[in-house]
Amino acid sequence: MVLGPGDDAGIVRLAPETIAAVDMLLDGVHFDLTQIDATLAGRKALAVNLSDIAAMGSVPVCVLVSLALPKENGLVTGKKIMEGIFALAKEFHITILGGDTNSWSGRTAISVTVLGEPLPGRAPLTRSGARPGDWILVTGALGGSLGDSKNPANARHLNFTPRVREAIQLNQKYEITSMIDLSDGLATDGGHLARESGLTMILNQNWIPVSADVSEGTPEERLAHAMTDGEDFELLFTAPPEMARILLDSQPLTRVPLTHIGECHAGDPVLKWQDGTIISPGGYEHRFEAD
Amino acid sequence: MVLGPGDDAGIVRLAPETIAAVDMLLDGVHFDLTQIDATLAGRKALAVNLSDIAAMGSVPVCVLVSLALPKENGLVTGKKIMEGIFALAKEFHITILGGDTNSWSGRTAISVTVLGEPLPGRAPLTRSGARPGDWILVTGALGGSLGDSKNPANARHLNFTPRVREAIQLNQKYEITSMIDLSDGLATDGGHLARESGLTMILNQNWIPVSADVSEGTPEERLAHAMTDGEDFELLFTAPPEMARILLDSQPLTRVPLTHIGECHAGDPVLKWQDGTIISPGGYEHRFEAD
Repeated sequence: MVLGPGDDAGIVRLAPETIAAVDMLLDGVHFDLTQIDATLAGRKALAVNLSDIAAMGSVPVCVLVSLALPKENGLVTGKKIMEGIFALAKEFHITILGGDTNSWSGRTAISVTVLGEPLPGRAPLTRSGARPGDWILVTGALGGSLGDSKNPANARHLNFTPRVREAIQLNQKYEITSMIDLSDGLATDGGHLARESGLTMILNQNWIPVSADVSEGTPEERLAHAMTDGEDFELLFTAPPEMARILLDSQPLTRVPLTHIGECHAGDPVLKWQDGTIISPGGYEHRFEAD
Repeated sequence: MVLGPGDDAGIVRLAPETIAAVDMLLDGVHFDLTQIDATLAGRKALAVNLSDIAAMGSVPVCVLVSLALPKENGLVTGKKIMEGIFALAKEFHITILGGDTNSWSGRTAISVTVLGEPLPGRAPLTRSGARPGDWILVTGALGGSLGDSKNPANARHLNFTPRVREAIQLNQKYEITSMIDLSDGLATDGGHLARESGLTMILNQNWIPVSADVSEGTPEERLAHAMTDGEDFELLFTAPPEMARILLDSQPLTRVPLTHIGECHAGDPVLKWQDGTIISPGGYEHRFEAD
C-alpha cells in the first residue's frame, strides 16, 4: 500500500491486471444484528468478498469499506464491524485501503470492495472456461449454512473460511478450466457455470456432498438443502478428467475435501441430473426479514 | 476493461499504482427520493467519487456499484440510479466494472467505488504536500449547493460537474503541491489540508469566492455559507507563488475561475483568517432527515 486511509483516495501498487469485486450486506437480510454481534457481520462482509476473489483463482490484496450505521448505537456497531473486518483481513494479509462511514435513521449496511491481482504467471479463472469432457468438482460439503436458530452466531454463513488459500493452490499447481464460488447454492450457481461456459453440466445426485450441518430429513430433503440452502462459499470448478483424477486421488487441500459431482457435455447450457432432469435455479433467499 | 460484470469479479488493466476511493450515499441523508428523481441520486453517487479521484490529480477509469433498494418500487429505482450513473460515466469515459444489487425493507443506499490511475509521469496529488510560502487557490465559487427548496432537483449538490478535467489539467501542466476536494466545506476541508500538510494556512476573508447560489444575507452570512454549506466539490490546492501567479494571470481552466484565497506558513497545523482567528471546522451536515 502506497497511501492508506485519510486522503481523498488510497493508492496501492498492484499487478497490471486488477481484480475487483463488491458485495453489500444488509442488516435484516444477510445478518440480523438483533441476534448476533456486529463483529460477525463485519467478518462476513469481508469473507464473502474474499470468496469472490478466490473464485477467480486470484490473490486478494486490499479492501475499501463503506458503512451506513443507525443513529442509535451506531458508533459501537461501526467499531465492532471494523473489528470483525480487521481480524479476518489480518488472517489473509489484506490491508484496508479506504472507507466511508455514514449515520442515518435506517439499519446497518456494509459494502465491501476487494481489490486483488492474478497469481503470478496464472490467468484469473472465470465461469466461462469449462470444456466438454471436463469433470465438475466441489470443495467441502453443502447445505445447512444458516445453522441452528438457537445458536445463530455459530452458523456457517457467518464464520465460514473463504477458500482463498485453496483457490490459490488449485490455480497455482493444477489446470483448472472454470470456477465459481457457491453463494446462492449449487442449483443456482451450477446453472451460472453451465450458462457462462455454454455447456450442459450433468450432476450425479448420489455424489453431492451434504454437510453435517444438514442435520435432519429424508435423503431427498437433505439433497435439497445441499442444492439450495446457499451461502456455502465453497468452490465449484471444472478440470480435465486426468487432472481431476489427480486432484481426487491426492486430495491436496489441507482439511478441505474435493468431491467429483459431475461432468461437462456439449449441449444446451443448463444444469441437469444424470437422469436428464433440468435442475432449476433456486436457493438462497433473504432470510432474516419478514416480507 | 478485460472482464466486465457477470463473473465473480471484474478485471481491469491499470497502471501499477491503483488509486481507489469509496463513498456511500443514503436516501434521506445525501439526497431525498421523495423530492428528486433517482437518476439524480445515481449521478451524485458517481460524481462525488469522481471528485475524490480528481482531488488526487489522477484519472478515473472504472467503478463498482452496490445498491440497497427498497422492496417497494426497488426495480424502477435501481434502473434509474444506474441510468444516472451510466450517463455521467459516459461523459467521463468511465466503465462499470462490477456491481451488487440487494432488496430490503430499508431506504435506498448507493455505494460507489471508483478505481483510477496516476497521470502518466505525474505523481498523485495528496493533502500533505503543501510547503511554507505556497499560495492557496480554489476553483469555482462556494456556498449554496443545497439550492432552493422549491426546486430541489436544480441544486448544485446534485448536478455539479466533478473537476476531473480541471484537476488533470492542473497536475499535468503545473506544479501543484497539495490538493483536496471541498466536500464538507472550506472551513472543514481547509483544516484537513492544513493538518495533513503540517502548516498554518491563512485565508483572507475578502478573497473567498461566494457562489451566486448564496442568494441572500449580509456579507458575513454569505461568507459563512461559502465556508460551511459544503458539497461544493470544488478543488482546494496549493502551489508555489510564481506558479500560482501564472495560473491566476492565465486562468487556464475553461469556464472554471481560479481564485487566490490565502497562503501557507510554518506554524501550528490549523486554518486561520488573516487576523489570526482560528477557523473552526463546521460545515456539511446531513440535511434531508429529521433527527
